Amino acid sequence: MSETPAYDPNNVFAKILRGELPAHKVYEDDRALVFLDIMPRAPGHALVIPKAPARNILDIDPEDLAYVHKVAQKVARAAKGVFKADGITLQQFSEEAGGQVVFHLHVHVIPRVAGVAMKPPANEMENNDVLADHAARLKAALAG
Amino acid sequence: MSETPAYDPNNVFAKILRGELPAHKVYEDDRALVFLDIMPRAPGHALVIPKAPARNILDIDPEDLAYVHKVAQKVARAAKGVFKADGITLQQFSEEAGGQVVFHLHVHVIPRVAGVAMKPPANEMENNDVLADHAARLKAALAG
Repeated sequence: MSETPAYDPNNVFAKILRGELPAHKVYEDDRALVFLDIMPRAPGHALVIPKAPARNILDIDPEDLAYVHKVAQKVARAAKGVFKADGITLQQFSEEAGGQVVFHLHVHVIPRVAGVAMKPPANEMENNDVLADHAARLKAALAG
Repeated sequence: MSETPAYDPNNVFAKILRGELPAHKVYEDDRALVFLDIMPRAPGHALVIPKAPARNILDIDPEDLAYVHKVAQKVARAAKGVFKADGITLQQFSEEAGGQVVFHLHVHVIPRVAGVAMKPPANEMENNDVLADHAARLKAALAG
């Protein structure tokens, strides 16, 4: 067992939060941001993150964790319609041994269609136009 | 895309909540119950469920979803110590297409050790004494 390292403010999601890197944003409020995974495991694969710095489930403020999941629920419900999904898979990885790659807490919201397996994680970069279209449609559904 | 079916009060987790089926319980309060998965993907694999009826993320009350994740965080932190884990994997499956097998919302909290892959889901029934020992140790850590 290893101790949880400190939050690294130079992780890529922190840079997205600061506007230093682009993202296909679908929702934003004062506490959370949602954008699409650029290597989706299925069409519409979104990431929900808290705005407050948090490495993962081991250090996040419980209220932020709760709020992130309320947003994840809204995304799941909207994504089900937009991407004609039959189900939703949620994943949240903490530390490298837990599957974490970017060290700012994020909840994966993955729309699932019956009989279609998820692609492997961090597998293939999606076309930018496809991501822009998916983000726009999910954003509209969340706003509507 | 299919509509979300109604909650089935005869699912096995509803039966555990009513005391009609046994479980290796590790935590309980007025809103949530935690017990061990009998087919763990890793030692200490726990399930956090709301006491209120909810099929999955598509129908659960947002406050219950938030609360379940606050409890999941406590379980994750305790499990990291008890099972000498280097990380934690959280999973939550909604509808069969999303990976759901039992239709009462549950969050999987899976302790992960570096270099050890998760076993396949619903793979092999764990020995009852091992589960009892793991439950007792996790329960003690959560109470302490």
